[in-house]
Amino acid sequence: MTVHEPTDRRGLRVIAYDECLWLLRRATMGRLGFVHHGEPEILPVTFGMDGPAPVFRTTWGSKFDAAAAGGLVTLEADSLDPVHGRAWSVVVKGTAAVEYADADIARLEALGVPVWLRDDSETFWVRIRPEDTTGRELRLP
Amino acid sequence: MTVHEPTDRRGLRVIAYDECLWLLRRATMGRLGFVHHGEPEILPVTFGMDGPAPVFRTTWGSKFDAAAAGGLVTLEADSLDPVHGRAWSVVVKGTAAVEYADADIARLEALGVPVWLRDDSETFWVRIRPEDTTGRELRLP
Repeated sequence: MTVHEPTDRRGLRVIAYDECLWLLRRATMGRLGFVHHGEPEILPVTFGMDGPAPVFRTTWGSKFDAAAAGGLVTLEADSLDPVHGRAWSVVVKGTAAVEYADADIARLEALGVPVWLRDDSETFWVRIRPEDTTGRELRLP
Repeated sequence: MTVHEPTDRRGLRVIAYDECLWLLRRATMGRLGFVHHGEPEILPVTFGMDGPAPVFRTTWGSKFDAAAAGGLVTLEADSLDPVHGRAWSVVVKGTAAVEYADADIARLEALGVPVWLRDDSETFWVRIRPEDTTGRELRLP
């Protein structure tokens, strides 16, 4: 961290867009935030990055409903790194959409997103079309 | 994990209420989900537990606004434990309220919630009055 890097009003380092994507590509697990019946929901997801777009698998359920509705969702990933004395968080906001095209699905299957939850139900790939990708880093005291 | 423990429709182990609280007490960092201008927001927070209620510090800003409005918020904490081959997530839903009473504030200050973000602004303690506390655990493949 050099003195030239921008900080926000709270003194957190503003993570540049390219570094946000780099951090997201290295993350495996994140949390999906969406509004369901007016209430804020958070669900953990394993996700991959298709270029600048987070993608994840889901089955029928509230996550799928949010995606199918083209709703605004938020994907957050973070990491606490006591060794280097820092913590970061990256948030992607965008609209969720189900991928139906075979070529798209094949490309996403090849990303190597871990499947932690074996489910006999039909699964779907959901893409978040990013509208805003931001990140912050703080130095641990 | 014994065969007697309940699982949900996706095969995830349902974490009992007392174990949810135990996991939350051991967690340091979580994510606060709330709805802001109709959009789902997720912000990382360091939090403590005052009995069954998550508590955290904040300053003026969107988190405080959500709390002051008595709005519904969601606190999520999770952990990926590759050594034991499992991952868990606990979610507390409830209404957020600012603590103003000196005795309450003194008790919360004594909880030892880490302050990662030094801020010269006035800080407030926010309590989530839990309405629903749930947890799930999965075995990693």
